[in-house]
Amino acid sequence: MIRLDTPAALDVALRTLPAADTGARAAAAARQAELTKPRGSLGRLEEIALFMAGWQGRAIPKLERGRVAIFAGNHGVAARGVSAFPPEVTAQMVANFAAGGAAINALAGAAGLELTVTALELDRPTGDIAETEAMSEAECGEALMAGVAAVEPGLDLLVPGEMGIANSTVAAALCAAALGGDAADWVGPGSGVSGAAATAKRDAVARALTRHRARANTPFEALRRLGGRELAAMAGAVIAARHARVPVLLDGFIATAPLAPLAVAAPTITDHCLAGHRSAEPGHARLLAGLGLTPLLALDLRLGEASGGAVAAAVVRAALAAHERMATFADAGVSAG
Amino acid sequence: MIRLDTPAALDVALRTLPAADTGARAAAAARQAELTKPRGSLGRLEEIALFMAGWQGRAIPKLERGRVAIFAGNHGVAARGVSAFPPEVTAQMVANFAAGGAAINALAGAAGLELTVTALELDRPTGDIAETEAMSEAECGEALMAGVAAVEPGLDLLVPGEMGIANSTVAAALCAAALGGDAADWVGPGSGVSGAAATAKRDAVARALTRHRARANTPFEALRRLGGRELAAMAGAVIAARHARVPVLLDGFIATAPLAPLAVAAPTITDHCLAGHRSAEPGHARLLAGLGLTPLLALDLRLGEASGGAVAAAVVRAALAAHERMATFADAGVSAG
Repeated sequence: MIRLDTPAALDVALRTLPAADTGARAAAAARQAELTKPRGSLGRLEEIALFMAGWQGRAIPKLERGRVAIFAGNHGVAARGVSAFPPEVTAQMVANFAAGGAAINALAGAAGLELTVTALELDRPTGDIAETEAMSEAECGEALMAGVAAVEPGLDLLVPGEMGIANSTVAAALCAAALGGDAADWVGPGSGVSGAAATAKRDAVARALTRHRARANTPFEALRRLGGRELAAMAGAVIAARHARVPVLLDGFIATAPLAPLAVAAPTITDHCLAGHRSAEPGHARLLAGLGLTPLLALDLRLGEASGGAVAAAVVRAALAAHERMATFADAGVSAG
Repeated sequence: MIRLDTPAALDVALRTLPAADTGARAAAAARQAELTKPRGSLGRLEEIALFMAGWQGRAIPKLERGRVAIFAGNHGVAARGVSAFPPEVTAQMVANFAAGGAAINALAGAAGLELTVTALELDRPTGDIAETEAMSEAECGEALMAGVAAVEPGLDLLVPGEMGIANSTVAAALCAAALGGDAADWVGPGSGVSGAAATAKRDAVARALTRHRARANTPFEALRRLGGRELAAMAGAVIAARHARVPVLLDGFIATAPLAPLAVAAPTITDHCLAGHRSAEPGHARLLAGLGLTPLLALDLRLGEASGGAVAAAVVRAALAAHERMATFADAGVSAG
């Protein structure tokens, strides 16, 4: 299991990111050129097949074991009234995941994905980022390793997701610190705030940036000071997936946010990531553009829980089905034009 | 079985389009408001659930029997060199559908949809629309009825699709006659033409419009003069689905084109239709805008065969899974915020 539990270990992991298997990718491209369709006519489905081939290291990639890995955490900044929901909803929703009643249970089931849920010290919220660091070094290291633990070699796809009241506030702070801009550029309605709560949210992010921006200049320090346990865990899961050559399908704004500080230090971190869905949260389009990612879907979801990623997994499944099952021009006796 | 085999019968069918079941739709909306998520946070998935409820007439709609219905036809205008592929490819691809080797076999399978293929007189191409009418009144009526025959009451979803070398040429002519604009506004690369073939394609559409525009002023005459057998069949299938209250998921440019003349006479014809995918074919965005439809997906497919519709069916399936399986706030003991 890869170590990410110290700043030095995280740095090493980000300096040793493996690349895709170019041979497998080329073999997949050669196969696509022979299938019974005008070249390129399956658009992004062809691109997905090549992406999956490169990261799985086989010309005909598969999606037998795809996993949604949800991480849940609580946030000190919630006490500032930045969310439409009270903090106890995080634990209530974790119970709902366990009972099978949440959106992601239905959506992972429909997409044929397994689901793991990791609740991270829900009784011990992180520090209020407007006033102090979110986590100690040890706490941040533990959260990163919780992400690593959710990844198994041999998974065909990983969809990291999150639940955590107030976590769109910390996601906005992480994005601003990594990619520039101020609080207003990155703060949106989240689960549905307006008025005083929206003002409190912008104010909390502005204060957090004033306090931490200068020292949140490494991936570890950014996650530790401005993040939260579930955000650090998603960062750990994405890095562990890369080292295990498991392709990643990203969900929305909060699930994508941990990539921002990682990408500043290691721009190729997004190479094994597909953006599944552009959220209705306004900061997400800005974040995806900053990371150079083009989302597969834009269905106005703004729920989190890996919901957009799970819906996008069906597109990946379609891409792989066409890639694997279609006949070639020669096999089918079709004129290639 | 509804009759669409004469101009008068088609007119009656379009004047008697049933409306959605507002009670079932309202019951679905009430259910959505109780599910364990911030209101509206599943975006278009919620909209799809309500749409399906209204047309299926039940608060909890299902997708057990979804059908891809492909219609294939040949076109006299192909002799003008407007396509990248020779006309015999239509029959070759029909054989490929039967053998299970085409993209739609893989994509319908991945989406859990059944597939029917109706080959329409492939040895008897329609008339060259640049010179004469595509079909006689009897031929057009037969093609419309072939579409009707592919629809069964009790289907949960219908995805009409097509195969026909040169049919993006006739689709462009149909759109221009119904929605305005000239050949250049509606002609695109289709399966991949450029240079002399692209010029021939624009020229064929321009000639067809000069010849037929004034008299292609009813749905039947537009389909008969400027359409083709598979386009008339898709029109028939969409109308039959409406009368059977089967919701329709549209594919790309050519599958959407028959809606254009229908919508001029009966603007509510699109009410039971979801646009599944915006094709890479440039005219499709214009056509969807003209019909007031917002596509679920935009994945740069340009294949036809109902491929984009079949991929979008997975989004419909996700929407229905969330709608049916999620717990309510009361059931799950989650604070509603």
